[in-house]
Amino acid sequence: MEVLCARKIRYICAMLEEKKPSKTSLEELGEFALIDQLTKAATTAMPSTVHGIGDDAAVLNHDGETVVSTDMLIEGVHFDLGYMPLKHLGYKAVVVNLSDIYAMGAQATQILVSIAVSNRFTLEAIEELYAGIHLACKTYGVDLVGGDTTSSKQGLQLSVTALGKAPKTGAVLRSGANDNDLLVVSGDLGAAYMGLQVLARENEVFKVNPNHKPDLEPYTYLVERQLKPEARKDIVGLLEALEVIPTAMIDISDGLSSEILHLCQKSEVGCRLYEDKIPLDPQFISVCEEFNVDSTTLALSGGEDYELLFTVKQEDFDKIKGNPNLSVIGHMTTKGDGAHLVTRGDEVIPLKAQGWKAF
Amino acid sequence: MEVLCARKIRYICAMLEEKKPSKTSLEELGEFALIDQLTKAATTAMPSTVHGIGDDAAVLNHDGETVVSTDMLIEGVHFDLGYMPLKHLGYKAVVVNLSDIYAMGAQATQILVSIAVSNRFTLEAIEELYAGIHLACKTYGVDLVGGDTTSSKQGLQLSVTALGKAPKTGAVLRSGANDNDLLVVSGDLGAAYMGLQVLARENEVFKVNPNHKPDLEPYTYLVERQLKPEARKDIVGLLEALEVIPTAMIDISDGLSSEILHLCQKSEVGCRLYEDKIPLDPQFISVCEEFNVDSTTLALSGGEDYELLFTVKQEDFDKIKGNPNLSVIGHMTTKGDGAHLVTRGDEVIPLKAQGWKAF
Repeated sequence: MEVLCARKIRYICAMLEEKKPSKTSLEELGEFALIDQLTKAATTAMPSTVHGIGDDAAVLNHDGETVVSTDMLIEGVHFDLGYMPLKHLGYKAVVVNLSDIYAMGAQATQILVSIAVSNRFTLEAIEELYAGIHLACKTYGVDLVGGDTTSSKQGLQLSVTALGKAPKTGAVLRSGANDNDLLVVSGDLGAAYMGLQVLARENEVFKVNPNHKPDLEPYTYLVERQLKPEARKDIVGLLEALEVIPTAMIDISDGLSSEILHLCQKSEVGCRLYEDKIPLDPQFISVCEEFNVDSTTLALSGGEDYELLFTVKQEDFDKIKGNPNLSVIGHMTTKGDGAHLVTRGDEVIPLKAQGWKAF
Repeated sequence: MEVLCARKIRYICAMLEEKKPSKTSLEELGEFALIDQLTKAATTAMPSTVHGIGDDAAVLNHDGETVVSTDMLIEGVHFDLGYMPLKHLGYKAVVVNLSDIYAMGAQATQILVSIAVSNRFTLEAIEELYAGIHLACKTYGVDLVGGDTTSSKQGLQLSVTALGKAPKTGAVLRSGANDNDLLVVSGDLGAAYMGLQVLARENEVFKVNPNHKPDLEPYTYLVERQLKPEARKDIVGLLEALEVIPTAMIDISDGLSSEILHLCQKSEVGCRLYEDKIPLDPQFISVCEEFNVDSTTLALSGGEDYELLFTVKQEDFDKIKGNPNLSVIGHMTTKGDGAHLVTRGDEVIPLKAQGWKAF
């Protein structure tokens, strides 16, 4: 999948308004033929995949601990096909699950994908979705080894299960952080959420005026973070190379605050997070100004960043300091101290979870 | 869950028409509180469960090969809450997935359950669903180790992933059957499908006349096969005890014909199935007469039996003959011979898949 340019995004915004030529209906095709069609690209490459698609279950051998995670994505709740092209959706659905595997310090190895689709979808549309799924498999080196394909009453529902091989030193849990451990985050925060705001605004304008030509050039990074997020497989490799074993780790799907509070709760510690240390992309900062919203608030609660948040021992500081992929944003304290944000003005404010509400 | 008696089924048919007292809405509760509420009963017991619910992923250790399978169940497509109580749905959703694990000759060990629910469901309704899920876990000795909980735009969608530990001799695939192997099935066939027909008929009558008191006594077995199917964990144990290693195995979810054809295709063999050997329950036979439908046709294409269909070497015949749980229903032939049904009148008819159509 090419990187999204502004022209591409314009096309995306426009494509759903176009009348499509008549295409292959799923009823015509039947379930088994559809599965064959969608999975013919699913060759297996991982040594741990003993048998892939085509039996009652897949057979794996991880030679040690296996990690497994699953997520459900519902049209109209988690994605809007009005500004999420199907190929990107397939890619993203895989990536968000792999992110959970990397958050265990594990190597992602296999996925299973189930889809339920209403008859408004054609074979070609579902093939687009699977093109994204296969691309994600290729990009991250995981095998598609199973799943289910069925009809839905309304819309598209996706369920992805990801499996991985835990490191020999054991999976990294949320519960291992200790008082004085450093709190570290990969990449930058908030951009995916702002990308969604930009797309939603353009979509509204487009509805009113289909001839409107949005200029998305100033928003390319934000929109790409929303439409084509990546999971931080590289960070797991980087930490291994640096010989740093995180004491606790989680991925950031619901916003930084919410994830910090999960770490604190599971590890029974407190935390000090420093506002001025939170990594923000310059484009994110300038668009927050344009939208007249507070960048820290969005970085804390925006969600969908899929960065890794982890704690390391103080003595590991020298190994990670100055790494452009990692920011030390605070440190853990005792449970009694609670979880706090230290603002640029040196105010100390209790951290609150303002994560994305599913209901 | 108690065995369904006729009175119970009457209650089931009636309960959905009742006005329920106002109950806890999911919006009030929020996602994290809902997850806590639903999973507090999910204690882990399997030695292979290293960490269960509560992290980015579950951690397992199967000390050898792992098998994994997943299924999606959509309201209005796979189940109708008009005659499927939520507790039974939860139980069945787990059972149909475990059936896939047993069909690999494996021991089911863990499940992950994702649900998407619209706001028409109350907390109490979802707790009923999970009561069935937890009961199935207890009955089959598997741990609930993860999942996802989210809202849907419409109705209830469930996705269950099941994991298991393959036998030391390797997972039993669909592809291992050879010419001359015996074809064996557990239990009896067609009853679950007829149970659904009975429930659908009663539901129609009930809609027209809510005071109608259906007499479901003559249909108890059929209705129970539909509403509370069981997976044949016992057969995996039985074969082990008999020292029989099936050459190929599949579970019967889409009807006997369809599954035989899968075995033939994957194993590159043909088959002769003998009509007079297909095991049918007396209640099934008599209700087929009442509904004026052909019992063989329904046994071949009915679906949802969740029995195990497998092949064994000729020399294993003595080990299985006369076992009340197992019926030898035919034998495999060369691929060139094709797959055929030999009728009671000695006619030889090509087998056709008339499995349940998802689209």
